[in-house]
Amino acid sequence: MAKMKAVIKAKPGPGAELVDMEKPVPGPDQVLVKVLATSICGTDLHIYEWNEWAQARIKNLPQVMGHELCGEVLELGKNVKNVKKGDIISAETHIACGHCYLCHTGNAHICVNGKIFGVDVNGVFAEYAVVPGANAWILDEKIPKDFASVMEPLGNAVHTVLAGEITGNTVLVTGCGPIGVMSVAVSRICGATKVIATELNDYRIQLAKKVGADLVINPKKENVVEKVLKETDGLGIDVVLEMSGNPIAIKQAFESLRPGGRFSILGIPDKPMEIDLGKDIVFKYITVQGINGRLMFSTWHKTSRFLSSGRLDLEPIITHRFRLEEFEKGMELMQSGNCGKILLYP
Amino acid sequence: MAKMKAVIKAKPGPGAELVDMEKPVPGPDQVLVKVLATSICGTDLHIYEWNEWAQARIKNLPQVMGHELCGEVLELGKNVKNVKKGDIISAETHIACGHCYLCHTGNAHICVNGKIFGVDVNGVFAEYAVVPGANAWILDEKIPKDFASVMEPLGNAVHTVLAGEITGNTVLVTGCGPIGVMSVAVSRICGATKVIATELNDYRIQLAKKVGADLVINPKKENVVEKVLKETDGLGIDVVLEMSGNPIAIKQAFESLRPGGRFSILGIPDKPMEIDLGKDIVFKYITVQGINGRLMFSTWHKTSRFLSSGRLDLEPIITHRFRLEEFEKGMELMQSGNCGKILLYP
Amino acid sequence: MAKMKAVIKAKPGPGAELVDMEKPVPGPDQVLVKVLATSICGTDLHIYEWNEWAQARIKNLPQVMGHELCGEVLELGKNVKNVKKGDIISAETHIACGHCYLCHTGNAHICVNGKIFGVDVNGVFAEYAVVPGANAWILDEKIPKDFASVMEPLGNAVHTVLAGEITGNTVLVTGCGPIGVMSVAVSRICGATKVIATELNDYRIQLAKKVGADLVINPKKENVVEKVLKETDGLGIDVVLEMSGNPIAIKQAFESLRPGGRFSILGIPDKPMEIDLGKDIVFKYITVQGINGRLMFSTWHKTSRFLSSGRLDLEPIITHRFRLEEFEKGMELMQSGNCGKILLYP
Amino acid sequence: MAKMKAVIKAKPGPGAELVDMEKPVPGPDQVLVKVLATSICGTDLHIYEWNEWAQARIKNLPQVMGHELCGEVLELGKNVKNVKKGDIISAETHIACGHCYLCHTGNAHICVNGKIFGVDVNGVFAEYAVVPGANAWILDEKIPKDFASVMEPLGNAVHTVLAGEITGNTVLVTGCGPIGVMSVAVSRICGATKVIATELNDYRIQLAKKVGADLVINPKKENVVEKVLKETDGLGIDVVLEMSGNPIAIKQAFESLRPGGRFSILGIPDKPMEIDLGKDIVFKYITVQGINGRLMFSTWHKTSRFLSSGRLDLEPIITHRFRLEEFEKGMELMQSGNCGKILLYP
Repeated sequence: MAKMKAVIKAKPGPGAELVDMEKPVPGPDQVLVKVLATSICGTDLHIYEWNEWAQARIKNLPQVMGHELCGEVLELGKNVKNVKKGDIISAETHIACGHCYLCHTGNAHICVNGKIFGVDVNGVFAEYAVVPGANAWILDEKIPKDFASVMEPLGNAVHTVLAGEITGNTVLVTGCGPIGVMSVAVSRICGATKVIATELNDYRIQLAKKVGADLVINPKKENVVEKVLKETDGLGIDVVLEMSGNPIAIKQAFESLRPGGRFSILGIPDKPMEIDLGKDIVFKYITVQGINGRLMFSTWHKTSRFLSSGRLDLEPIITHRFRLEEFEKGMELMQSGNCGKILLYP
Repeated sequence: MAKMKAVIKAKPGPGAELVDMEKPVPGPDQVLVKVLATSICGTDLHIYEWNEWAQARIKNLPQVMGHELCGEVLELGKNVKNVKKGDIISAETHIACGHCYLCHTGNAHICVNGKIFGVDVNGVFAEYAVVPGANAWILDEKIPKDFASVMEPLGNAVHTVLAGEITGNTVLVTGCGPIGVMSVAVSRICGATKVIATELNDYRIQLAKKVGADLVINPKKENVVEKVLKETDGLGIDVVLEMSGNPIAIKQAFESLRPGGRFSILGIPDKPMEIDLGKDIVFKYITVQGINGRLMFSTWHKTSRFLSSGRLDLEPIITHRFRLEEFEKGMELMQSGNCGKILLYP
Repeated sequence: MAKMKAVIKAKPGPGAELVDMEKPVPGPDQVLVKVLATSICGTDLHIYEWNEWAQARIKNLPQVMGHELCGEVLELGKNVKNVKKGDIISAETHIACGHCYLCHTGNAHICVNGKIFGVDVNGVFAEYAVVPGANAWILDEKIPKDFASVMEPLGNAVHTVLAGEITGNTVLVTGCGPIGVMSVAVSRICGATKVIATELNDYRIQLAKKVGADLVINPKKENVVEKVLKETDGLGIDVVLEMSGNPIAIKQAFESLRPGGRFSILGIPDKPMEIDLGKDIVFKYITVQGINGRLMFSTWHKTSRFLSSGRLDLEPIITHRFRLEEFEKGMELMQSGNCGKILLYP
Repeated sequence: MAKMKAVIKAKPGPGAELVDMEKPVPGPDQVLVKVLATSICGTDLHIYEWNEWAQARIKNLPQVMGHELCGEVLELGKNVKNVKKGDIISAETHIACGHCYLCHTGNAHICVNGKIFGVDVNGVFAEYAVVPGANAWILDEKIPKDFASVMEPLGNAVHTVLAGEITGNTVLVTGCGPIGVMSVAVSRICGATKVIATELNDYRIQLAKKVGADLVINPKKENVVEKVLKETDGLGIDVVLEMSGNPIAIKQAFESLRPGGRFSILGIPDKPMEIDLGKDIVFKYITVQGINGRLMFSTWHKTSRFLSSGRLDLEPIITHRFRLEEFEKGMELMQSGNCGKILLYP
């Protein structure tokens, strides 16, 4: 039986292990890929750290970690028709059933029977991986291979930015982790006329500026609400893209939003928080949208076009590249915040 | 100087007074109307009871209470061109400046310079009242005059129901006060395929059934979430229309909502409440909309057409009619919950 | 080899034949169904009459005609998981590839690789038929079996009515063939506040009234444009649903439409016609939508719910029921126009 | 009585005249402005040339021509509150009644009682002009004054580009007159991922490239449909923005559009043209939108923000600047096509 290297979550508790394990065999609806690159998501870090969310959510240990992927197709299950051997692919990480109400009505990414790579089933921090043919996204040849791995989280950013009107709008991105930074960049190329971000970490403040933020506010140093109101002539911001999961940032964002504004949330607070529905939502006539995943596959098409057209450049956002064996270095960097997106090469 | 009877909030504290006061004189952009009927809103009750919201919000005492109106135009300010003497009107109660960003972009009802009858300026619980010509809504002659006074709160219901997709959707209306009951009726005629309501009060439970609720759940007697899931084959409800302001009802509604659903809120909780953004909004991919007022004047046109076409009948919803002098009887009935909409005739 | 009866188009030219032929065998992604009922579409009539469209479009003769279906699942191809033996199904008739740009972005019904039952591949005017598992629609048990066969064309009506705003709108349905009549009924239950139809045939005029038209205009007897303007207080109609394919009706509809209105077209004119883009579309700021098929599967869910909730009753629209052998009687009735929907039972 | 210079259309027939005439006096709802700059629209050229449209449309001669304006407010009518003396303004040129169905429902730009500067009432090719206070648009101080005059036609471009989805879309702009060129520029900054234009005139081809067209096709030299299909991998273009009014360009655009695409028309063909509704619209499932004017005032806010943020630069599009007296030179240049936007300074 062929073997491969993989980073697995072996058991409950902090950490992860590099192991040798059996190379997977594709089922009839799957493809086997050689992993050319993978990248680290905040979710991977949660699983690595074994935080409360991970403890409650991760059921099937041991499990290969990771879900962001650039791979080369090596073998096809017999029902797979949409890709061929040798294709370079990225992959949608939400596995959908295809026939529930949500799959039927444009919301396959929240399929009631859905599973997620590296969360519910084995992931892609490995030399090889299997993915459903339906989830394979053939990379446009104009896009650098490295970027394929980052298309999935970039899709989160695109999904959030485009969940409502953005052209001619002012935008506040709260939190400049990798997806926050991508949201800044995507907002810029989609016609937002003022992009303000908030961030505490200097490295990320610089990164946000580099990709096009008109202004980055450090909430430790400046009053976010006052500053946003001043920058918007007292009206408030049109659109909030919440990327921090931080209750203080969320409260500030509610206050910074103009009446009738949009508040799209991708960040996840650890626990319930107090919200003044009357003051912050009802009287203010605002819309709060919970966002996760990517539209399958409208978001992928847009994401791909942004990259292939050269309108969007991921290069400044990919700040570090390591060998897969160095995954712990990547995890530590993520914890420090002194990075954008980190790639791992098996 | 001509005199008139009016119900005023004379001073801080519970209660209201019937007084004789000067008949108002219309300004250049206003019309003077003889009030043919007015009706009691929950807001009026808050001011009458002098609850926390009223204490914080009401600044200009003494003030004539009330904002829902059927009136006959008696005099026109010299700039008013859109109505004429003798017209029977209802009135939009949000007075907008017409040139701020919100007025400019289809959101005059949340004008940053906006004022509201009976809250910021003298209202209509009186024999006569002045309203801006721009706020006058000429009643379609096919609509009973009585209904004019109720078109404003009916507009709230129409605004909430139509704030997103409704046709072919299942709907949960939480709370069957007058606007809740109207929301049931409006959802029915707009193609909702299952309309479930929740309500504690027996009188209102019957009223909700009468206007078309497929099912009314009494949360004291049944488990709302279980019942809704059962009625929706385990999927959850497509749309929540929150009309209660009750934190328990709101929590139940979040749990009853299907992934990707719509949660439109018109009800106002007294104070901040805990919300699990991650579980209830982000992972669930739902949209929460704060609603207030009515679109000026798309909602009015729809409301008027629902009534003039006979598609919607307000008669079952108007449960009591009193003389203006009997306003206290109306307030008490509202407190008891044993009523739908209450009309007062000056 | 098992045999079955089927109505086939054997060769170019008018007519069709009832023949004995081999019972089909389902492929790995298909199901075999026993046809319980089928119904006649205008498209079937075009193929039967062998009009210009049919001559240009139909390539693979001989071919089983028909595409509207109520069937019982008898056998499953080995990849089929979403239905089981004994299920009573209707079927989506557009077969989509699932991975082109259009399939990927919510438009599978216009898949660039798409095929249609009874047009590109064998249809369902037969005792047995095979359909892709992905196209099977399991009938809600609250819906009469007969209605399953009519859900496909009803889906066309639902798709057209709901292709834009309908609640609180005035609607003109031009042409009261079966889908026109369904559009009248669907508009009514979805909150249209005035539904006007045009039709020449008395039988269908009565049918349109029966299902809820507020007014049916016979263009031979009355001036359509004048009448519509009068009924809309001079404004013009908000929404046109074009179901006739008739150039005169189309011109009248353009003139009847209000500025900023919606013009949704399901009818197909035989040949190009003159349109005054400047006057009728640009200066009038209207939106013209070409409609075909049904959204896969949002429209099916709505259609199913309209029926299962009892909001919509197809019984008055199904005017005739014949044995499959009597298909010529059905075709002749369709030609006469003295019918609504015609069912055929194998 | 004070006098001023003005360019008027004195009588039917080609040409226009520079005359001395009475300086206008503002009514109670108007402001008097000193015209700092005006610019020439295609409409002005039609009136100057006295084409068929102008002959049918222009009723009130003599009349001051022109409608695009940069002015300084000199005097206020007594009801005007939203501007003050000294304000630098542009102006919306559609004068709306404010209380018809269209004004009430977000479509004031197609008000049924609407009038247009320089078409129905005196325009702005003059030293002074009066405009309704409600139509005055106060220029953001970050925007060069010159640009104020061009904001009105730029608004047409913005309105057309943003009439549907644009981000991540491929776009075909047919015709690179001034508004076509602006549409190219606006599409670019709003996230279109490929912007193709068609144009015959070399000067304008260069201009379109300068402002961001990825490709400009000269239909005299290349097959538009083939080229567009090749550039879109055979799918067809997502969005057509029709700016030429040319029937050949329109036919090519229909063929170039992908199934399910958007076809937004601002150009006006001289006369009716043949359209194959079945093939080009219904089976193709496309949406055709007639566009005119600008949303009052959402479009103005977006337009203003594009300019004030520096996202959009009009400088390359303003190719010529003349004194008002030289208007004939401007008209001749417009006829030649060897220009972008032409400014006239009184």
